[in-house]
Amino acid sequence: MQPADFTVPEPPVSPLRWSGSWRDGHLRLLDQTRLPRHETWLEHRTAAGVIDDIQRLAVRGAPAIGIAGAYALVLAARAVLEAFPAMSRPEFLEQLAEVAQPIADARPTAVNLPAAVARHLELANASPDAPEQIVAGLLEAAQALDAYEKDACEAMGRHGAAWLFGRTRFLTHCNAGSLVTSGIGTALAPFYVLHASGQAIHVTADESRPLLQGLRLTAYELAKAGVPYAVQADSAAAGLLRSGKIDAVVTGADRICANGDVVNKVGTYGVALAARSNGVPYVVAAPLSTLDANTATGDDVAIEDRPADARAYLAPETAPADLVAHAPAFDVTPAALVSAFVSEAGVIEQPDRRLLAPWLARAEALQTRTDPGR
Amino acid sequence: MQPADFTVPEPPVSPLRWSGSWRDGHLRLLDQTRLPRHETWLEHRTAAGVIDDIQRLAVRGAPAIGIAGAYALVLAARAVLEAFPAMSRPEFLEQLAEVAQPIADARPTAVNLPAAVARHLELANASPDAPEQIVAGLLEAAQALDAYEKDACEAMGRHGAAWLFGRTRFLTHCNAGSLVTSGIGTALAPFYVLHASGQAIHVTADESRPLLQGLRLTAYELAKAGVPYAVQADSAAAGLLRSGKIDAVVTGADRICANGDVVNKVGTYGVALAARSNGVPYVVAAPLSTLDANTATGDDVAIEDRPADARAYLAPETAPADLVAHAPAFDVTPAALVSAFVSEAGVIEQPDRRLLAPWLARAEALQTRTDPGR
Repeated sequence: MQPADFTVPEPPVSPLRWSGSWRDGHLRLLDQTRLPRHETWLEHRTAAGVIDDIQRLAVRGAPAIGIAGAYALVLAARAVLEAFPAMSRPEFLEQLAEVAQPIADARPTAVNLPAAVARHLELANASPDAPEQIVAGLLEAAQALDAYEKDACEAMGRHGAAWLFGRTRFLTHCNAGSLVTSGIGTALAPFYVLHASGQAIHVTADESRPLLQGLRLTAYELAKAGVPYAVQADSAAAGLLRSGKIDAVVTGADRICANGDVVNKVGTYGVALAARSNGVPYVVAAPLSTLDANTATGDDVAIEDRPADARAYLAPETAPADLVAHAPAFDVTPAALVSAFVSEAGVIEQPDRRLLAPWLARAEALQTRTDPGR
Repeated sequence: MQPADFTVPEPPVSPLRWSGSWRDGHLRLLDQTRLPRHETWLEHRTAAGVIDDIQRLAVRGAPAIGIAGAYALVLAARAVLEAFPAMSRPEFLEQLAEVAQPIADARPTAVNLPAAVARHLELANASPDAPEQIVAGLLEAAQALDAYEKDACEAMGRHGAAWLFGRTRFLTHCNAGSLVTSGIGTALAPFYVLHASGQAIHVTADESRPLLQGLRLTAYELAKAGVPYAVQADSAAAGLLRSGKIDAVVTGADRICANGDVVNKVGTYGVALAARSNGVPYVVAAPLSTLDANTATGDDVAIEDRPADARAYLAPETAPADLVAHAPAFDVTPAALVSAFVSEAGVIEQPDRRLLAPWLARAEALQTRTDPGR
């Protein structure tokens, strides 16, 4: 089957949505920390609230925090304008750069967030317009990014489904579904497309401690989409792969480095090792916006350490009162363990630096051009 | 340093203890499901209570459930005697075999439990004594097993410490400490011995979902013993091994098969793979009583599936209401991934069937001889 032959469903859930004009609008975020039992929406009219929600992981996933950051920049720019309506264009741009910084710095791992903020700032600087028009332009840029990522999901779904076609039993780690972007997801996109196209598939989701994104989020959206699934402890992944009951592993990526190393949710590396040891292909599905030409290898990426997460989602009294935790949020999977990369640009098998080069060039153009439109 | 050069400390905790004579005595078990915050002791005067506690993991670990099973057999034999005081010796032995079966079957994975029950039944059958003396003999046999396992821990601690000497940063999975046996543990024994001998060591414990034995139990007993430690999500193990910050991985074993395959807590296989991929030695410390000459390979062992465990120790409302879980309690690590086995008989490096043969013969003798004494 070719990518075009597949059916693409609507996303089972859309985690962020802008409503209204740049002047009176707001950003709505689904509070992912309260899923699956509580579907609570957060309405933001200030950038500070969005930054806080990015940091506490109410909104998460590389593409989604890029989009959320772009909308936060609109809210920040509007606040500057409201505070100082008589500001000159240079004064406004200076203030804008200042309020943009904490948005770009809200989380360190995904390149999407600082790249989106830098690109949209560049757009503002390049514009000859008055401040009001600049803010309007920032909203247009954010909406274009939002739409771009939605289309990228559809393309990843089609390309991934074509590559995976004929395989039926999948394993995924963490959550890289419709909750991490504006479309049908990255790693989960091929599953949604295969399912919508009438293929009988089954997805096993690692629960993904410490924050249980697999148990809380992947299970939630697979259930909404009607895809048969099971959840397991992360520790069960290697044994399941050894059992011969998995046909392919698919994950997303928080960042893909210039050499193809994958920075993703902690645990991905172990799953990739077990897949390789047992002859199961490991596929990384991520939009070009997560490729980072400026980071040579995975070892150059700052890995967040989040000790407080070790207690998260556990019953009270489970952990020792004076628990000392080692809690990296991500790990690095060497490029050599990746069987194929899937992006909106297609599929690259046995990826190496040479094969990745054209994607990296496209990603860089995407991240630095002043018009991120569709 | 030689094994004899090291200092052996007292166990930080002793999870099971028999008090009194066979006629009025009872078995006390530390309820490990309530650790670390609650130290609750359970007092058993019937075998049914012990069986229940073995099944709900209040007492756990291959050596400990063997010992608990041996004491449960005393309680069961006493109950038979009390119910039918005028029974003949053959009638008594027939009844004894019947009440022994549910004890032997309480859990399927560790060979220690059925082996201890079968051996002690054999002892009873071989005895020419009257029923009262047979029950007294069963208590002596249970106490001898208890003492044997305590000594085995000390020996494993010494042999393991000698092999690991010079290494300081260790990783362990699940809990194979003083809580799983009657001494200073199996995998943790070398750490306790190194620490007591003045070596500066640090132990990272995988939290070991789903039942969090690393977070709840290993952290608890390492803290009691004053050994510096940290806990991490299981998913962090592979990345930590890749970082070069671990000098050796040490785990216990629920069963070691005739070919050297290791059946242990789910997740062990993934850790062993990551250790091998990153040049870190993987050591299995287990008493001879966990070797099973009658099981050819790990794939011949029944792996318990415990779906209810997936929700255990999580905060309410964390999991979807209709969660479907894949929850194997164990996995199989191929012998080829083991750098060294440590038992009370010493150390075997790069174990294969030929090197293991003498240990298997000793284990079989241990499990079938009618006098398990010291």
